[in-house]
Amino acid sequence: MDMKKFLADYIACKSVSSDRSCAAGMADARRHLVKFFKSLSIDAREISVGGHAVVFAKTEQKPNRPTILVYGHYDVQPADDLELWDSDPFTLVERGGRLYGRGASDNKGGHSAMLLAIGDTLAAGEKIFANLKFVIEGEEEIGSCSMPRFLREMRDELGADFAIVADTWSLDEKNIVITTGLRGLVGCEISVRGCSSDIHSGYGGCIPNAIGALADICSSLHANGGAINIPGFYDAVTPPEEWELLQMKRLPMSDADMQKLFGIKQFQLPDARFSALETMRFLPTLEFNGICGGFQGDGIKTIIPHVASAKITCRLVPNQDAESVKCLLQKTLVDRCPKEMLLSVKFEQASAPYWIDVERIKNPAFVKIMKLVDSEIEDVFGNGPIYLRDGGSIGIVPMMKSILGIDSLLIGLSTADDNIHGPNESISLPMVEKGRKFFRSLFSKIR
Amino acid sequence: MDMKKFLADYIACKSVSSDRSCAAGMADARRHLVKFFKSLSIDAREISVGGHAVVFAKTEQKPNRPTILVYGHYDVQPADDLELWDSDPFTLVERGGRLYGRGASDNKGGHSAMLLAIGDTLAAGEKIFANLKFVIEGEEEIGSCSMPRFLREMRDELGADFAIVADTWSLDEKNIVITTGLRGLVGCEISVRGCSSDIHSGYGGCIPNAIGALADICSSLHANGGAINIPGFYDAVTPPEEWELLQMKRLPMSDADMQKLFGIKQFQLPDARFSALETMRFLPTLEFNGICGGFQGDGIKTIIPHVASAKITCRLVPNQDAESVKCLLQKTLVDRCPKEMLLSVKFEQASAPYWIDVERIKNPAFVKIMKLVDSEIEDVFGNGPIYLRDGGSIGIVPMMKSILGIDSLLIGLSTADDNIHGPNESISLPMVEKGRKFFRSLFSKIR
Repeated sequence: MDMKKFLADYIACKSVSSDRSCAAGMADARRHLVKFFKSLSIDAREISVGGHAVVFAKTEQKPNRPTILVYGHYDVQPADDLELWDSDPFTLVERGGRLYGRGASDNKGGHSAMLLAIGDTLAAGEKIFANLKFVIEGEEEIGSCSMPRFLREMRDELGADFAIVADTWSLDEKNIVITTGLRGLVGCEISVRGCSSDIHSGYGGCIPNAIGALADICSSLHANGGAINIPGFYDAVTPPEEWELLQMKRLPMSDADMQKLFGIKQFQLPDARFSALETMRFLPTLEFNGICGGFQGDGIKTIIPHVASAKITCRLVPNQDAESVKCLLQKTLVDRCPKEMLLSVKFEQASAPYWIDVERIKNPAFVKIMKLVDSEIEDVFGNGPIYLRDGGSIGIVPMMKSILGIDSLLIGLSTADDNIHGPNESISLPMVEKGRKFFRSLFSKIR
Repeated sequence: MDMKKFLADYIACKSVSSDRSCAAGMADARRHLVKFFKSLSIDAREISVGGHAVVFAKTEQKPNRPTILVYGHYDVQPADDLELWDSDPFTLVERGGRLYGRGASDNKGGHSAMLLAIGDTLAAGEKIFANLKFVIEGEEEIGSCSMPRFLREMRDELGADFAIVADTWSLDEKNIVITTGLRGLVGCEISVRGCSSDIHSGYGGCIPNAIGALADICSSLHANGGAINIPGFYDAVTPPEEWELLQMKRLPMSDADMQKLFGIKQFQLPDARFSALETMRFLPTLEFNGICGGFQGDGIKTIIPHVASAKITCRLVPNQDAESVKCLLQKTLVDRCPKEMLLSVKFEQASAPYWIDVERIKNPAFVKIMKLVDSEIEDVFGNGPIYLRDGGSIGIVPMMKSILGIDSLLIGLSTADDNIHGPNESISLPMVEKGRKFFRSLFSKIR
């Protein structure tokens, strides 16, 4: 099957999960997947537990064979500002060895490489020894909100030895990354209020200023140097393993590269033992994502704002627990709120951190696949993979671990220049074609 | 002349100086004034030095008589959210003893009381002994930006013994306030930037966060307790005079009243010697008027914002100098900006503080008018006036002091429930009618 044709039809489905007006595009994407599975005589159906339906498919399940859960997500981010796109976001366009379109990299391209690899094998009349199950969800970009319920309700049906997910980052075609850890996420919006409405600043001098109080609270959350100043926040954090530090050295990328990539004036390293590339992998964060209060127009408006709010997210590293971090954060925010202000804290959905210690894996099927992946990546991409934690979060991975009890093999086909979530999202055509080749070989060899 | 008719026609002119689409309404308001002056055979014309024209009028000027400059402004604030108004902002409506409409209190009602008082006198065939000059400007709500140039270019024409301005606050009809001081104003917008665009927070942990840096800077500008933490900021501040503290005691209003009025949870008094009502009159301020950065939508968006900005204004008390405060603020902001951030500071137009020591006035004409005003207010309103500084700023008053060398007699006809700048602006009809009566008597007695 032609990759460009398959992806062109898939990207043409406007499957923006956060946009209610895209319900038809979501349904189109599901139909596209179901049709594909049926063309391979793989049983497939849509299952909804309340939110956007999951496309669930499975091959005939035979006993005493490894069972693999192939995961992907058919939903995409909004296209946002169309003027920033060089071509229509929902029309696949090939330019300079790249396929452009919303979802090309995140994640339609990634899981399509797996699906077409399986299609290639079956179309050639070959058999796949492993039992395959497919979960292609439609809520990844909105926090996989119904997925805990889906996984719980479908637990018996979803039993597997491990999952394979192609929704992470690699440096480039020669440096494929196997992601061994993901940070967790705790997010909240805080709001402070000092009086019942905005007051003319001619009265000012002793009226509590909501922006000032919010700035005080926010400023208190980091110590000088950037470490997080919340008592107990780092208590559960464990140092990286020796092998992780060695793998970091294999990554042909420096802090200076990242600094240049993002136009950063200067990093603020909270722990002198770790470089920037290590900090984003091994340490938790507390970042301000948004702040708002008072007058937003041009010029000045002399008001004392009565309310101001900020959005905060923490990324958590392995061994930290989202619920404990929520409690610490809530307590600290309450403690730090000036007595003349009213505080409200609203937590958003959280996700747990995820980590595999590749030197100490106990599941024999997973050990076996890791070995196979290692040699197959070297064969197809020219170098063996680099095993690295990632600084991001993928909610489904810790969910599958805690609800289904299975680990995930995270293979990255996306690169930093794919501009996922931004305008002109794309994926490297050689990367996705090599990924397809790699997966075809991998699936044919799993025993 | 009927006050309601005069004000109804005046308020119907949409004279919003900040709104370019209101040019016709601005011209209507000027025509309304010129027509009024001409109906009294007072010479009147529109004079523009670049911005919105001033309506300038004067009676026949005779030697050896006191000369009074009557000031007002015909421009108004935007109506803003029409849904919050109970009736059309530009249609005068009388409800429960109040006249509603944009500008009813600020300032069309205030100076109309003076104009109609003069009209009453002349219409009755009486003469006014004093020479009168009228400056009704159209830029008060946008910082009186062309007025320094107007005052300089018209300096010879504008010579007067003092100005009378009815654009300030009184407690109520029984407690008229003569404002003896105004705070000055210095405003700026600051912006910090840490990288070239927003970055996915999966990279977070050591990337400079613009909101975090802005919060640090803002938080550093006040000490615990609320005093302003800028070296040298208070150096020029002088304590209030004994008579000012005594006058404060005459004001039948308490901190608790103000707290209730504004729904304030608790005041934050930066100097234990002063109550809240004293703090807003005798101490300078640094207030945050607006803050903005990062994601503003619903829910969470995991970005590290590359830029964040805040609007800050300082109110200055007598003896503080706007230029010196700008320098101190600029230096402090630069010093406090974390080294990993780029800072920009943009100052807006400033105004000087203003103050009269009523016990030490040297201008004999002003001493005379103050005595007259005192007894006339007692006659008309039932009590003698209270002499108080105000926490607000009126740019034209210090401008007239520095450019024309004249002091202003500030008589308040507005009260806190007029809701100036907000929806449903109104003025008390008895207040404005008593004001008219008071001014008629005052103008007839000035010698």
